[in-house]
Amino acid sequence: MALDRFSLNQATVKYASLETAVRVTVDAGIPSIGLWREPVAEFGLEASARAVRDAGLRVSSLCRGGFFTHVEGPDRRAAMDDNRRAIEEAATLGAPTLVLVVGGLPHGSRDLVGARSRVADALAELAPSARAGGVSLAIEALHPMYAADRAVVSSLSQALDLAQQFDARDVQVVVDTFHIWWEPDLAAQVARAGRGGRIASYQVCDWVTPIAPDALLSRGYPGDGHIDFAAFTRLVVEAGYAGDIEMEIFRQEVWDDDPTVVARHAAATYEEHVAPYL
Amino acid sequence: MALDRFSLNQATVKYASLETAVRVTVDAGIPSIGLWREPVAEFGLEASARAVRDAGLRVSSLCRGGFFTHVEGPDRRAAMDDNRRAIEEAATLGAPTLVLVVGGLPHGSRDLVGARSRVADALAELAPSARAGGVSLAIEALHPMYAADRAVVSSLSQALDLAQQFDARDVQVVVDTFHIWWEPDLAAQVARAGRGGRIASYQVCDWVTPIAPDALLSRGYPGDGHIDFAAFTRLVVEAGYAGDIEMEIFRQEVWDDDPTVVARHAAATYEEHVAPYL
Repeated sequence: MALDRFSLNQATVKYASLETAVRVTVDAGIPSIGLWREPVAEFGLEASARAVRDAGLRVSSLCRGGFFTHVEGPDRRAAMDDNRRAIEEAATLGAPTLVLVVGGLPHGSRDLVGARSRVADALAELAPSARAGGVSLAIEALHPMYAADRAVVSSLSQALDLAQQFDARDVQVVVDTFHIWWEPDLAAQVARAGRGGRIASYQVCDWVTPIAPDALLSRGYPGDGHIDFAAFTRLVVEAGYAGDIEMEIFRQEVWDDDPTVVARHAAATYEEHVAPYL
Repeated sequence: MALDRFSLNQATVKYASLETAVRVTVDAGIPSIGLWREPVAEFGLEASARAVRDAGLRVSSLCRGGFFTHVEGPDRRAAMDDNRRAIEEAATLGAPTLVLVVGGLPHGSRDLVGARSRVADALAELAPSARAGGVSLAIEALHPMYAADRAVVSSLSQALDLAQQFDARDVQVVVDTFHIWWEPDLAAQVARAGRGGRIASYQVCDWVTPIAPDALLSRGYPGDGHIDFAAFTRLVVEAGYAGDIEMEIFRQEVWDDDPTVVARHAAATYEEHVAPYL
C-alpha cells in the first residue's frame, strides 16, 4: 500500500538494461517505472513495451523530449521530428506523458529571451501531435544552474506561464523537488499547477550539498539533503495530484551501486519521507 | 571616461592585501573599489579608510553583512551584533551600502520558509542602525544553487519583496548579473527595483559553463560566459541606476593571477562589455 503510487525512474539505475531495470523495480515491490528513450531504443521499442506490460508495471512517464531552442533551420527541424518520434514512443509504451527538457542557449548565443520564446513556438508546433498520440507534453523546469546549457525554463512559475498558453490535456508541467525547492512562491505555484490540472508528474529527489563537482550529478535520496519532503508533498497533495510519484536520481555513487540495492533503497526512502504525507 | 563608473570589488583580487588592492585599482585607472571586511580588518579599519581616501578612490560598497537566518538565541544575537559592527565599518569607510548575504538554512534545518521569514525580522532589527549610520542595507539575491548553504534569498523578485517592507533609504538590493541572469521576469524586476529607488549596486561577472567543481568559484570576466551584458546593462540604465558598477569574480584562476593583471583585465572587459551600453 505504501508503495502504490511509487515509480522508479530508470535514470536512477542508469547502467542497468531495460530488462534489469524492470526486474529490480518489480522485485522491490514498486508498481510503476519511468522510462528513458535511450535504454528503450537499445532494448527495442516494442520489446520494451511488452517487457513492462508483462511485468505488470505502469509506465509513469517517458524521458525525454525537448532540446528545441534552436533558431529555425535544419537543427530545429531535426529536433521537432525527434520530438514527434518521442511522442509516438510514449504512446507505444503506454506512458501518459513525455517529459521535456527544453534545451539551453544555442551554441554561442546569449539571447535567453529569444531561446525562451522559441520554446513556446515548439510547444505550439508539437501540441497537435501530442493530442493525436494521447500523450501530454510535460515541461520540466530545471534548476536555474542549468539555464545556460540544459533548460531555459528555470522555475515552475515560468513553466506554468508557458503551459497555460495551451490546452491542459496537451501541455502540462513536472513538479520536481530538486529543481524547484528554492522557488520563493513555491506553495502558490504548486497550487496554481494543481488548479489548472497541469501536474503531469511529481518527481522526488533531494538537494545535497556541497554541489557535486559535476553539477548534473548533485542529487540524493530523499532525506540525504535539505528538502522538506513532508511540506513539499503536502503541497502537491493539496493541489490535487493523484498520480505516480517518481524518484529520479543522477548521482555517480547511486549509479555505481547494485541496481537491486538502489531500487530497494529508493523504495525505503520513499516510504519514509514521502508516503506518510500522501 | 569609460571607466568613470567602474569599481573593482576586492574579492576579485582575493589574495592581495588592502594596500595592494588599492594600488592595482589606481594603477588600472579605476576610480572606485568595493571592500571586504576581512582584508579591511587585517589592514586596520582606520588605516583602510585613510588608504582609500588618500588614493582618491570611492568606496562603492562593503561586503558583507548577513548570515542571520538562525532561530533566536546566542548565535542570532552574535550575528546581529556583528551586522551592527559591519554597518559602522561601512560608515567609517565611506561606503554607501553594506551588502548582505543573508545566510542559508540553519544547520540541520529544512525549514526554508522559516529561514526566509527570519531574514525579514533581521532587516527590521537592523534598519534603524543602518539609518543612523547613513548606510543602506543591500540584500543580495544569490543564485538558487546557494539557497541551502549561503543565501535563502534566491531571486531579485524575492529580494524586492523583502526590501519593500522598509524605507528605500534603509533597505535596497544588489543587482548581480551572475546570480539573477536566469530570472524569467528579469526586465520587469530590474525596472521595479529602479522605480522603487532600490538599486544599491550593479555587479557584473559572467556565468561560465561548465560549473566549476567548487560551485562557489564558477564566475568569469564579462565576455567569458553566457550573459548578455549589453541587454542586462540597458535594463539597469533604463531603471535609472547611476551609481558605481562593481566587478566581483570568484574564480581560482583569477585569484591565482597577478593582481595588477587582473585589475587591468577587469577594466578592459568592463570597457568592452559594459561601458558601451551606459
